[in-house]
Amino acid sequence: MSFTLPNIPDLTDAALTARLQHKIDQKTKPLGSLGRLETLAQRLGLILGSESPELRAPQMVVFAGDHGLAARGVSAYPSDVTWQMVENFLAGGACVSVIARQHGIALTVVDCGVRHDFAPRPGLLVKKIAPGTADSAAGPAMTAAQRDQALANGVELVKGLPGNALLLGEMGIANTSAASLLLARLAGLDIDDCTGAGTGLDSAAIARKTAVLREVLLKHPDAQAPLDVLSAFGGFEIATMVGAVLQAASERRVIVVDGFIASAAVLVASRLAPQVLQRCVFAHRSGERGHSLMLLQMHAEPLLDLGLRLGEGSGSALAWPLLESACRMLREMASFESAGVSEKSV
Amino acid sequence: MSFTLPNIPDLTDAALTARLQHKIDQKTKPLGSLGRLETLAQRLGLILGSESPELRAPQMVVFAGDHGLAARGVSAYPSDVTWQMVENFLAGGACVSVIARQHGIALTVVDCGVRHDFAPRPGLLVKKIAPGTADSAAGPAMTAAQRDQALANGVELVKGLPGNALLLGEMGIANTSAASLLLARLAGLDIDDCTGAGTGLDSAAIARKTAVLREVLLKHPDAQAPLDVLSAFGGFEIATMVGAVLQAASERRVIVVDGFIASAAVLVASRLAPQVLQRCVFAHRSGERGHSLMLLQMHAEPLLDLGLRLGEGSGSALAWPLLESACRMLREMASFESAGVSEKSV
Repeated sequence: MSFTLPNIPDLTDAALTARLQHKIDQKTKPLGSLGRLETLAQRLGLILGSESPELRAPQMVVFAGDHGLAARGVSAYPSDVTWQMVENFLAGGACVSVIARQHGIALTVVDCGVRHDFAPRPGLLVKKIAPGTADSAAGPAMTAAQRDQALANGVELVKGLPGNALLLGEMGIANTSAASLLLARLAGLDIDDCTGAGTGLDSAAIARKTAVLREVLLKHPDAQAPLDVLSAFGGFEIATMVGAVLQAASERRVIVVDGFIASAAVLVASRLAPQVLQRCVFAHRSGERGHSLMLLQMHAEPLLDLGLRLGEGSGSALAWPLLESACRMLREMASFESAGVSEKSV
Repeated sequence: MSFTLPNIPDLTDAALTARLQHKIDQKTKPLGSLGRLETLAQRLGLILGSESPELRAPQMVVFAGDHGLAARGVSAYPSDVTWQMVENFLAGGACVSVIARQHGIALTVVDCGVRHDFAPRPGLLVKKIAPGTADSAAGPAMTAAQRDQALANGVELVKGLPGNALLLGEMGIANTSAASLLLARLAGLDIDDCTGAGTGLDSAAIARKTAVLREVLLKHPDAQAPLDVLSAFGGFEIATMVGAVLQAASERRVIVVDGFIASAAVLVASRLAPQVLQRCVFAHRSGERGHSLMLLQMHAEPLLDLGLRLGEGSGSALAWPLLESACRMLREMASFESAGVSEKSV
C-alpha cells in the first residue's frame, strides 16, 4: 500500500476573521484585555467555521508503541513500562486518565505497536503494526509498508471518533529519542540541542543518549523527506498519530497538541501539509529540552508553561478548559450594547 | 472602631510536607515530571492540612468600588462603568460570570463603595462604605474609620462563606491607579515602573496618569505603614478585599489571587501578616505593567501567563481547574505499587 494524503483545505477566511474580531471587540471588556484567550477564540472560530463555536465530545487518544532503540539504554525506564502504563490508563489511574475524567474527555488508548498482547476491553483499540519498532541504530525503525499502515490506521481511527476535537496523547518508552531524531533531521538542528532528560536522565546519561542518537542520524543519511524520516526513526505511535492528525485536520477537528512527542508528530504532519497547523492548539511548553525549538519550527505559542514533562496527553487535558472558556466567551459574554455598559471615553 | 488582625498561624509543617512529597513521588510518573502542578499540590495539601486535599464549594467574590481619583482622568472609561459592570456580573454576561459558571464557582458581588444604589437581589451583598472614595490627589481616599469598617466588612463576609476556597475578583474604574500607588509606596518603587495602561490608555495618557499618581504620592509623605498607605490611596473594594484575605487566611481557605488589583490587596495583607502568602495561589501574570514587580515583592510565581488584563476575577476563574487537577492528582492517581508499574531502572 501507499499512503494517500487527506485533502486539507486552507482555512484562511478574511470575512469570518473580521466577524470574529468584531464580536470579540464588542464584548464587555477593554479591547484586547483577554490576551491569548482572544487569539484562541479566533482560532477555534476559524477551525469550527463559526462565530459561536461549540466544542463537542472531546476525544483524548493515547497512542502507544515500543521502540527498538530502547535496547540501547536511551531511557531511564524499561520498555515494559509502556504496556504497564497502558494498563494504568485503562484502569483510570494515570495522570491523563484523572484529568480527562475531570473534564469529561473520553479516553481511548491505541496499541500502535506495544511489545505486549492486551486483553480486549472498552477504551482499548488494537492497531498493532508489530511488537515494537526495529532498532534505528541498526536500520530503519519501520518499513515503508509498516509506516503507511500506521498512517492509514491513524486516518481510520479518527474517522470513527465522535465530536469535533482530538486531544493528542502518547506512551512509549524511548519515544523522546524518536522525537529528538525527527526534530534534528526535519529542522536541520544539531542533535545536542534536540536531546533532553526524557523520563529523568542525569547529565551523564543524557550525554550517552545524545551520542547514540548522533550515531543513529549518521546511519540514515538518505532519510530527508518527511515520510522517509518517519520510517527511519519511528515510532509506530508517532506514525499513527501523524495519520490521525492529518485526518482530523481534513475534518476540521480542533487538534490539541500535547508535549514533545505529540509535537513531533504534528511537525511531521505539517511538513506533509502545512495547513495542519491552522487546526492546532498547542497546549503547553514542555520541560523537555528541544520542545521550544520544535515549537519555533511551527511558529507555535503554547497556552501553558508549567514545566510539565510527562506526556500521555496530560498537558493537552490540563489545557482543555481554556479552549472551552474561549468558546464560551464568544457565545455567552454580553456586548456593550446588550449589557448597557458605556464604551471607552478617551 | 479599630481593626483587629485575625490570628493567622504559620503553616510550616515539615512532616506533612515530607508526606506530601513522598505521595507525589510514588505516583505513576517520572519524578518531578508534573512540574508546577506538583508544587501546587504541595501548597494545597499544606493549606488544607491533608495528603488528600479536596476543594469544596469555591467562592468567587467580586469586590466593587468607585474612586474619587477617577475624576482626574486616570482611566479610559467613565466611573459609571463600575455599576454597569456590577449589573453585568449579576446578569451573568461578564467574563467572570461566564467562566465561574463554566467551573461551578459561586459568584458574589460586593458593593464596597460603588457610586450607585443597587436594587437588592441574590448574589449581591451591599457593604457600602460611601459612594466612592475621596480624591486621593486632594487628601486621603478614606478615613481611618472607613478603612477599618471596610476591613471588618471583608472579615465578616468571609465568615459567612461556605467551602474552603476564596477566588478574588474586583471592579472599580481607576483601581489600577490605586494599586499602582500601593505598590509604589509599599515596595519603594518609582511610580513609572508601577503604572500601566489599565483598561487601555495610550502612551500619552499613561504619561498623564503617571504624572497624576506622582503628585498623589507627594501629597501623602506620611503614609508609610500598610494601613496608612491603604487609607491614603484606597479603594474601598481593595480595603474590603484585604480584610477578606486576612480572614480567609485565618480560616485556612485557599486564596486564589487574580491580577494587578487583587495582588495589591494581597500585598497589603501580607505586609500586615506575611503568613497570608502561604495560603495564596497566584492565578496569572497580568499584562498590566507593574504586576511582575508586584509578584516579585511576594515571591509569587503565577500559574498562567496569557496576557490577561481584565481583572474581575477572570484570571482566577480561568486558573481554577488547575487547582482542582492538582488535588485530583494527589487523590486519584495510582502509585507505582498499586498500578504494578516498574520503577526507574537507571
